[in-house]
Amino acid sequence: MRVCVYDDDRVGALASDSTIVDLTDLVPGHTPADERMNALIANWDAVKPTAAERVAAGGGVPEADAVLRAPQPRPRNLFAAPVNYHKHQQEMGGDAGVYVGRQILTAEVRKGFLKAATSIVGPDGAIELPWEDRRFDHEAEIGVIIGKKASRVSTDDALDYVFGYTPLLDITLRGEEDRSFRKSFDTFTPIGPYIVTADEVDDPEKLDFWLTVNGEERQKSNTSYLIYGIAKLIEVYSEVMTLQPGDIIATGTPEGVGQIVPGDTVVLTIPEVGELTMPVVARA
Amino acid sequence: MRVCVYDDDRVGALASDSTIVDLTDLVPGHTPADERMNALIANWDAVKPTAAERVAAGGGVPEADAVLRAPQPRPRNLFAAPVNYHKHQQEMGGDAGVYVGRQILTAEVRKGFLKAATSIVGPDGAIELPWEDRRFDHEAEIGVIIGKKASRVSTDDALDYVFGYTPLLDITLRGEEDRSFRKSFDTFTPIGPYIVTADEVDDPEKLDFWLTVNGEERQKSNTSYLIYGIAKLIEVYSEVMTLQPGDIIATGTPEGVGQIVPGDTVVLTIPEVGELTMPVVARA
Repeated sequence: MRVCVYDDDRVGALASDSTIVDLTDLVPGHTPADERMNALIANWDAVKPTAAERVAAGGGVPEADAVLRAPQPRPRNLFAAPVNYHKHQQEMGGDAGVYVGRQILTAEVRKGFLKAATSIVGPDGAIELPWEDRRFDHEAEIGVIIGKKASRVSTDDALDYVFGYTPLLDITLRGEEDRSFRKSFDTFTPIGPYIVTADEVDDPEKLDFWLTVNGEERQKSNTSYLIYGIAKLIEVYSEVMTLQPGDIIATGTPEGVGQIVPGDTVVLTIPEVGELTMPVVARA
Repeated sequence: MRVCVYDDDRVGALASDSTIVDLTDLVPGHTPADERMNALIANWDAVKPTAAERVAAGGGVPEADAVLRAPQPRPRNLFAAPVNYHKHQQEMGGDAGVYVGRQILTAEVRKGFLKAATSIVGPDGAIELPWEDRRFDHEAEIGVIIGKKASRVSTDDALDYVFGYTPLLDITLRGEEDRSFRKSFDTFTPIGPYIVTADEVDDPEKLDFWLTVNGEERQKSNTSYLIYGIAKLIEVYSEVMTLQPGDIIATGTPEGVGQIVPGDTVVLTIPEVGELTMPVVARA
C-alpha cells in the first residue's frame, strides 16, 4: 500500500483507480493533525484490512487534484547514517574531495546522527536555501519508516520492525558546522510523496535509485552498496535508543553529491518506492 | 513560577505553601499527556493569571508526596551548544586532554547540534549507562525552554522568546561516534525538577551553578563565561530553524567534566533555578 498525508493533513492511501482514499477516520478522533501518520502506523495491524478494502474499492479524490504533503510530518526522531557508501567517502575526502586532506570516517565509526524533525517538507513545498554565499548539496537517500517500538533489535529481526520506505533528500550545508546543524535547516529533509509499506518492497537492500538536477543525472546507485545495510542501521540505532513507530532513518547517500542553487529542480527516483520532485528556491 | 510535570503526567506549579497545584485543566482536554507542557507553554499568556492565583492559594499535593517527572518530556527539538566554555575547550583537546592532539572547535565554529528528545528523563528516573567498557561523562548545563515560535531573532530580542530555565545534564559517551549519537542514548538528558519561568531569573547570563558526584564537587562555573551566551544561541539557532514553543536549548558545559559509573549520584545545583539529583545505574 502507498500511504500519504494530503490536503488538510488527512491520512490516505493511493487506490487502485489512482484516487486517494481517506483513512483519517481510522485514527482516534482527537489525534493532533500532525500526529495522524504516527497514529496510523501505531495502529496499522488493526486498521490495515479496512484500509486495503478502501484501496481496492477506490472512489476517492483524484490523485492529480490532491495536495500531497510530507507523508510523515512528525517523527519523534529523524536518524541518519553518515557516509554510508564507499564511493561517497572517496569523493568527500582525499586529495580532490570536498574536504581536501581530511580523513572521512564512515558509518562504521560515526554510527549515526540526528536531523531536526522540523526540517521535513513534502512535495507540496520547496527546498529553501538560506544563504547565497555558502554551498548546499543534494543527497539522494532511501528513508526507512519504523513500524513498531524497537529496542536492541538484531540484524536478523530488524526488517520486521519496518513500516515502509519513502524517497528522502538529505539537503546539506558544506562547512565546519556540526553535521546535525548543517542538515537541519527548515525544508532540508524533503520526503514523499508516499510511504510504500514494507510488504510491497521485495528486498530493500537491492533498490535502484537515481537523482537528477534539471534533468541531468547526478547520482545513481543501489542500496546493495550500503556499508551499513538497512537492517544493520536498525540494529545499531535500536541499541542506543528506543525507536518509536513513525521514526525515520535516512540511510545515507552514494557518490555524485553536488551543489544546488535557487531555480533548480531535483528529482529523486526509486522505481519500487516512488519519485519525489522538489524545486529549489532562495529563502524569502 | 516553577512549573512541572508530576504523577500521571499532570502539569502543575509549585505553590506558596510548598504544595503542587494542578494546572492540567488549563490545557485543552484532548491534549496527549506528553504534549501538555507544550500546550501550557503555547497558551501561557492566557493561562498565567489563573496559574498565579492557584500558586498563591496553595492547597495542592504536598511536594514530598508528588512524583516529579521531566518537566518538558516532548520538545520538538532539543538543541545543544558544543564546547561553549573556553576552559572546557582546553580540557578536551591539547596535550593532556580527553582527545589528545585533536583541535577542539567551539560553538563559534560548530554552532550547534541535536540531541534526541527521547533521551529526556526526569528526577523520577535514573541515568542508565549501556556499556561497561566505554567512558560516559557528566556535563552540567542550563536548559533554556523556548516560549514562542522564533525565526531569525536578533540577540537583542532573543530573551523575549524564553519561557524559562531548568537544570539539565548532557550525559555523553566519549569516542569517535558522531556527537549527536554519543549524547542521545535513552536517559542521557536529565532535566528538572522544575522549569523556572523567565520573569523569576534576574539575569540568565549571570547564573552560578555547580555539579557534584557522590558529594564531591566536579564542575563549578557561571553562565557569564559562556562563549555564545543564551541570547546569541537563540539568534544562531533561530537563523536556521524555526524554534517552537517548548523547544529546549542545552547551553554547553564548563570545565570539570568527568566519568560517571553505576552507583554514582550526580547533583546539579543552580541556586536561582533548582537542584537536580540523578542516580547512575547500569542499563538492565
